[in-house]
Amino acid sequence: MTRMMHLGTIVGAAGHHVAGWRMPDAEFGSQNLELITRIVKTWEDAKFDLIFFADAVNTGLDAHPTHMLRLEPLTLLGALCMTTSKIGLVATVSTTYSQPYNVARMLASIDHMSKGRGGWNVVTGSSPDAAANFGTDPHPEHASRYARAAEHVEICKGLWDTWEDDAYIADKATGRYVDGDKMHVLNYRGAHLSSSGPLNITRPPQGYPVIMQAGASPTGKTFAAASAEVVFATQQLVDDAVAFAEDLKDRTEAAGRPRDAIRLMLGVSPVIGRTREEAQEKLAELAALVDPVAALRVLSDRIGTDLSAYDLDGPVPDLPPSGMMQGHAVVLQAVAKKHNMTIRQLRDYAAVSSGHRLVFGTAEDIADDLEAWWRAGACDGFIILPPYYMRPQEEFCEQVVPILQERGLFRTEYEGSTLREHLGLERPAHPAAQARSEAMA
Amino acid sequence: MTRMMHLGTIVGAAGHHVAGWRMPDAEFGSQNLELITRIVKTWEDAKFDLIFFADAVNTGLDAHPTHMLRLEPLTLLGALCMTTSKIGLVATVSTTYSQPYNVARMLASIDHMSKGRGGWNVVTGSSPDAAANFGTDPHPEHASRYARAAEHVEICKGLWDTWEDDAYIADKATGRYVDGDKMHVLNYRGAHLSSSGPLNITRPPQGYPVIMQAGASPTGKTFAAASAEVVFATQQLVDDAVAFAEDLKDRTEAAGRPRDAIRLMLGVSPVIGRTREEAQEKLAELAALVDPVAALRVLSDRIGTDLSAYDLDGPVPDLPPSGMMQGHAVVLQAVAKKHNMTIRQLRDYAAVSSGHRLVFGTAEDIADDLEAWWRAGACDGFIILPPYYMRPQEEFCEQVVPILQERGLFRTEYEGSTLREHLGLERPAHPAAQARSEAMA
Repeated sequence: MTRMMHLGTIVGAAGHHVAGWRMPDAEFGSQNLELITRIVKTWEDAKFDLIFFADAVNTGLDAHPTHMLRLEPLTLLGALCMTTSKIGLVATVSTTYSQPYNVARMLASIDHMSKGRGGWNVVTGSSPDAAANFGTDPHPEHASRYARAAEHVEICKGLWDTWEDDAYIADKATGRYVDGDKMHVLNYRGAHLSSSGPLNITRPPQGYPVIMQAGASPTGKTFAAASAEVVFATQQLVDDAVAFAEDLKDRTEAAGRPRDAIRLMLGVSPVIGRTREEAQEKLAELAALVDPVAALRVLSDRIGTDLSAYDLDGPVPDLPPSGMMQGHAVVLQAVAKKHNMTIRQLRDYAAVSSGHRLVFGTAEDIADDLEAWWRAGACDGFIILPPYYMRPQEEFCEQVVPILQERGLFRTEYEGSTLREHLGLERPAHPAAQARSEAMA
Repeated sequence: MTRMMHLGTIVGAAGHHVAGWRMPDAEFGSQNLELITRIVKTWEDAKFDLIFFADAVNTGLDAHPTHMLRLEPLTLLGALCMTTSKIGLVATVSTTYSQPYNVARMLASIDHMSKGRGGWNVVTGSSPDAAANFGTDPHPEHASRYARAAEHVEICKGLWDTWEDDAYIADKATGRYVDGDKMHVLNYRGAHLSSSGPLNITRPPQGYPVIMQAGASPTGKTFAAASAEVVFATQQLVDDAVAFAEDLKDRTEAAGRPRDAIRLMLGVSPVIGRTREEAQEKLAELAALVDPVAALRVLSDRIGTDLSAYDLDGPVPDLPPSGMMQGHAVVLQAVAKKHNMTIRQLRDYAAVSSGHRLVFGTAEDIADDLEAWWRAGACDGFIILPPYYMRPQEEFCEQVVPILQERGLFRTEYEGSTLREHLGLERPAHPAAQARSEAMA
């Protein structure tokens, strides 16, 4: 099979421009199930690999206002299992503020209900406010969060393996319901987390739901290299992106996995015009709606330091990496340095796409840009973040996707039916079944 | 409005007879979404108030085999939000093995996605195996579980109240997204659980999803009297049921709530024949499929003591209440005493309906029985537990429901659209909004 570009999106139902929801024709509402259903259907009609929902276990009062209130991703994916049939459905779930047995069950349910289209965007949570919601003040620091995350994912995988693929028999004649020989106890005892199992649901259709990860700090990259199958990252400069991709492949190999075990997908926010001038005008229209205070909060959040005390027209200060969102911080500081940006300029830049890379121009320009990055080896695909809904999404699907398809870069029909198949990822064999088959060979 | 009977069901997708799934025409599978969807639609067509899913956070290897493996209820309800439009959707969630902030979010999502049809069957978990799945060995004892449950429910209600009903503004013109004056911080600090809030989802359409509870021990009843709006109980003898109902009303009043604040719904397993003889034959057909070892495990589980060491043909021993499922234990021992049953007889009785009351005969007989219990003041309605699917369910819906409707005991159409409206329960006003309106009066 020819290697193709992979496309996904975060469904923030207000779009990714901080003020996109205020556009006259914008539809929004992260609790608006009817709208979300329509948005997801449009991505599916465009043959996207996957959608996922960003999440946090706090209101994020200081950042993008429309992120404050939203439907909970796992229950929402349950609903979307019924309104979609092909597109991958990925939930963001924090390992810091959840219990592995519950998470393993819910993700297995999504994978079963969607017939193999489930995925898990593993986050460790970047906001200290979350801790107070769980009575576990203070928020655990970065390294401890990742140590817990590693155990959490290991337990979930272990629980998904507590039943072999063919353990469920349910034979009316004999009354045998399961094959007890194909049930395994996990008995995991970690420093942070423990679980015995077995899980009370059969092995997911995909073996494991697809594991996605977005941490870009050194710890985050090590974690991704060991566990992730999709990495979502932000990169502003193509050379840095290629270096990032190579570094991730090196780490993946060092973790004992094939160099191509991970699909790296980069966030891109497209603003599309019939002409470049029109695209520029749309950008200006969006910029005019930005509340400068809210926008500076978004930037402060991404950078990990409150910038309100700094001179807006001064240079972006050199800041040490904080415990929060290190990927965005590094990349935004690099772009500011390269273009000699003031804080005000960086603020306006970050407002457009919540910190992701902005691409604007005609549909052809955008397709060219995506193709160039992809051919340069910067990534395996993109997470497309429209500034608002529905028009910019429709423009991407109706104008850019067909160009990519004509160029043979993107599928025109779904060939597989599971998310693993869309992404060209192998279904993990059950360890015990594999050991038995190796012993017999 | 005339008082009517309320009807609900537990959707165990294998039915409630321990061997019902083995019947030649049985359809089953607690992970079979297509079947579950069809089952739920049939109950909705019959105008039932609600369905709920039993749950456990362990495999229950020793009990009803078909309970071992199942879809997780909250994600499943997400799916059912899209396939139903009227019936109430209740998830069982353990307070012992969950975190209130996560539970409050998920139930609020279900209530939003279903437009006010969500409910929560609060359980504290009765199996010691669950603790090992959460790394919190040993399983907390009964009183401590209920103390945590009380805090858990209080936090969830508090979190649902962190946004007033009209806090969400989302005004494009001004860019105001929420009314900060209508946001409240919770800052709950309990002995077992803490949470600050605010929640990251608006107040549920019903204010709070309907709170359901099934504990029948003295602690459980006190908890229900303080917090529950629906109580699901098992009773085998009408006089005991009336006494139970009166006791619950007394406790509810003592907790400072109106006597009629709770809808008491009793579990009933109907076996319906065109004649009484045919019903008896169906019962015998079901009994012949029972695996005696599995059936004794179900009884042991309900009673809370392993009965395998006792003489099967001896009397049911007097056992002290255990920490597990006290309601079933008390009621089953009472029925054994009244009818002088041996362990074998009680085993076969409990196998039919997982310990709930068995009613068999013609559709008319069953309607008579339900009406008599309801008129005697034994309950506000019933949780109907068909021995298997789909035929016994269809028989109930096609034969018994029309009789209840003709007698004016059950609705012929849904009059309201929320679960609270079906049950005749008030929507809780927001405390702050209520205080303001009282101050103005």
